[in-house]
Amino acid sequence: MQEIDVTAIGNAIVDVLAHADDAFLDEHSLTKGSMALIDENQAHALYERMGQAVECSGGSAGNTAAGLAGLGARTAYVGKVKNDQLGEVFAHDIRAVGVDFDTLPAKDGPATARCLILVTPDAQRTMNTYLGACRELGPNDLDAERIRRSKVTYMEGYLWDPPGAKQAFLEASRIAEAAGRKTSLSLSDPFCVERHREDFLDLVEHHVDLLFANEEEICSLYQVPDIEQAAAAVRGHCELAILTRSEKGALVLNGEQSFEVAAEPIERLVDTTGAGDLFAAGFLYGYTQGRPPAEAARIGAICAAEVIGHFGARPDADLAALVAQRLG
Amino acid sequence: MQEIDVTAIGNAIVDVLAHADDAFLDEHSLTKGSMALIDENQAHALYERMGQAVECSGGSAGNTAAGLAGLGARTAYVGKVKNDQLGEVFAHDIRAVGVDFDTLPAKDGPATARCLILVTPDAQRTMNTYLGACRELGPNDLDAERIRRSKVTYMEGYLWDPPGAKQAFLEASRIAEAAGRKTSLSLSDPFCVERHREDFLDLVEHHVDLLFANEEEICSLYQVPDIEQAAAAVRGHCELAILTRSEKGALVLNGEQSFEVAAEPIERLVDTTGAGDLFAAGFLYGYTQGRPPAEAARIGAICAAEVIGHFGARPDADLAALVAQRLG
Repeated sequence: MQEIDVTAIGNAIVDVLAHADDAFLDEHSLTKGSMALIDENQAHALYERMGQAVECSGGSAGNTAAGLAGLGARTAYVGKVKNDQLGEVFAHDIRAVGVDFDTLPAKDGPATARCLILVTPDAQRTMNTYLGACRELGPNDLDAERIRRSKVTYMEGYLWDPPGAKQAFLEASRIAEAAGRKTSLSLSDPFCVERHREDFLDLVEHHVDLLFANEEEICSLYQVPDIEQAAAAVRGHCELAILTRSEKGALVLNGEQSFEVAAEPIERLVDTTGAGDLFAAGFLYGYTQGRPPAEAARIGAICAAEVIGHFGARPDADLAALVAQRLG
Repeated sequence: MQEIDVTAIGNAIVDVLAHADDAFLDEHSLTKGSMALIDENQAHALYERMGQAVECSGGSAGNTAAGLAGLGARTAYVGKVKNDQLGEVFAHDIRAVGVDFDTLPAKDGPATARCLILVTPDAQRTMNTYLGACRELGPNDLDAERIRRSKVTYMEGYLWDPPGAKQAFLEASRIAEAAGRKTSLSLSDPFCVERHREDFLDLVEHHVDLLFANEEEICSLYQVPDIEQAAAAVRGHCELAILTRSEKGALVLNGEQSFEVAAEPIERLVDTTGAGDLFAAGFLYGYTQGRPPAEAARIGAICAAEVIGHFGARPDADLAALVAQRLG
């Protein structure tokens, strides 16, 4: 069987994106830039108040997988949809970009997950997730042989929210570790870190090889006020810690070394949804192709810049061509 | 009861938009720029081959209704979805922009209609429509009182494809005519004209007050080689015939008078889906507000230019503000 570059595991979600103004966020007590979990009733109520929307496949690790495949990496994805229309949309989109996706859809139970995303004029996204069928993901959905064949098993912190998915996460990382493969974690969101800090600390300090976090998330993990202190705390625990800082670029900790990477210049900022996911895609692509971390981070920055230049969290452009052109 | 500016009747469709190259169209024997009707099996087969897509509400008259509401017109829409996830998406989006929409969704039978749209690098769209639940629309879905209260009842030629919808179309135009109201028809597509030429000729020459057609459609209707001959043929049959010519603007026949309107300059051409629908929206807005036809056509050109500057067939921008700014 062929080696896989990355198997990504995440909550399989269809994004519902609409423009909104700051007053709308205030009125609905939504915290700008964050992800809140909502139940089915809340999802219906919020959807009814939202403006005209566009649907496109999303999910943090799903976006990363789509980016990896777009760059040319051999990529697999594990995540749970229901066999409904939105589940079909999710499965179609991730397969259409070349990702192996064969997690069985749920036959009954809640509908395919949706994330209601409000994009404000400052291009920030505020996310409200109804997890639906994601709650049905469990260890039985894992193909152990595929994980053993994957250079990296990448998992989103959001998996910690549905209990079965958390078990799948732990099982996948046990399989990968036992096979001498790398595991990677994205901390996903400061509120997610807040919900699961103790577990995440244990993972980061004892199990994760490649950690992705933005400034807020890593500061929340260690409950420190600035990235310097957070970097000091995480240093040495992971082979690589990639700390993204929006327009300030990224800080990469590589054992005792560390270096900064500038953000890629952009023409226009439209929608920041997916920025971190695509940074991870670019970095993991470089890493699994054996490129040095500085180059991997540069590829991450190029991919993040692409996805924030348009509406939606999956790349529009031919990422492989874009990276080839930018790296020269 | 309040007067309504426009009641629009059409096939209620969710668009599934993906990029494709010319080779893909050739391989699947698709005629660029046209709309083909496909059955459920063909829809599945084509969807499987299409790239990653974005879903957004569409339908020719639905797009026109959304544009009208965005301009500030009192607008109602009649069209049939099923009570499934995509039907919910359609209903949400059209209501979210302020259109009255209360056609009962079908409880069983085929799924909500989908139009698989391939957008080529030249920004042309090639449409493949699975009519699904649109086949369930019939005269019983009409609210006669609402039509009597509408200054204009606007219908898409595509309604001629599903038999029940055609009956609804005829009934609606009878009600409007009897109430001394205006009826308006869009010829929709040259292949649609080909399928229903005799009926369309009868409608245009005896019943329609405001006719919308592009160059190809009006030439197909009269089976003539150029727009001058088509204009000579249609002249006098309708109160207004609005003949759109893409980047060449539009030719408006107003009784014995006629005049041309230039296309609105655009920054970039992204996706022509919805251009004709939004031209009609702008024109009907001007018309129902009592503006002279030349100004109505100018508003149509502004709205068409907005929708071809981005992906998808419904306006992204605040059309009322855009028109106010452009008209000065």
